[in-house]
Amino acid sequence: MIGSIAAVLTTGAFVPQVIKVIKTKDTSALSLGMYSMQICGVFLWLIHGIRINDVALIGANSITFLLSLIILVYKLKYK
Amino acid sequence: MIGSIAAVLTTGAFVPQVIKVIKTKDTSALSLGMYSMQICGVFLWLIHGIRINDVALIGANSITFLLSLIILVYKLKYK
Repeated sequence: MIGSIAAVLTTGAFVPQVIKVIKTKDTSALSLGMYSMQICGVFLWLIHGIRINDVALIGANSITFLLSLIILVYKLKYK
Repeated sequence: MIGSIAAVLTTGAFVPQVIKVIKTKDTSALSLGMYSMQICGVFLWLIHGIRINDVALIGANSITFLLSLIILVYKLKYK
């Protein structure tokens, strides 16, 4: 239960950032290094979640992967 | 093992963002909503990790909590 709330929060956290980036196309203060590492890391968390069969980890990281990818694409496009 | 690499990457991802924010003091493109939710979520992941006794979750989220806090403080100070 705590894991699920944690998952909703840390995944949901990327939603306002995605909205802000899409609206403003301003990615100047965003770190390319951060989002590159983030995407690799989230992908591995997903595999870890599948291996230990933890629903919170699997659900959260699937969505976070997509949201981080959107931010990374904008960062590369509008840097 | 995969969990540990995942932990290093998603935690480490915040390091370049923290460095960038401290160096430039530019937080214009960063979302306040993101870092507020992030901090609450990471704290709950930490509790979840302690409950399921997962070292990767505990270690990663302790450090991510501190890094996100630094970014949030800069966002509030230099918005």
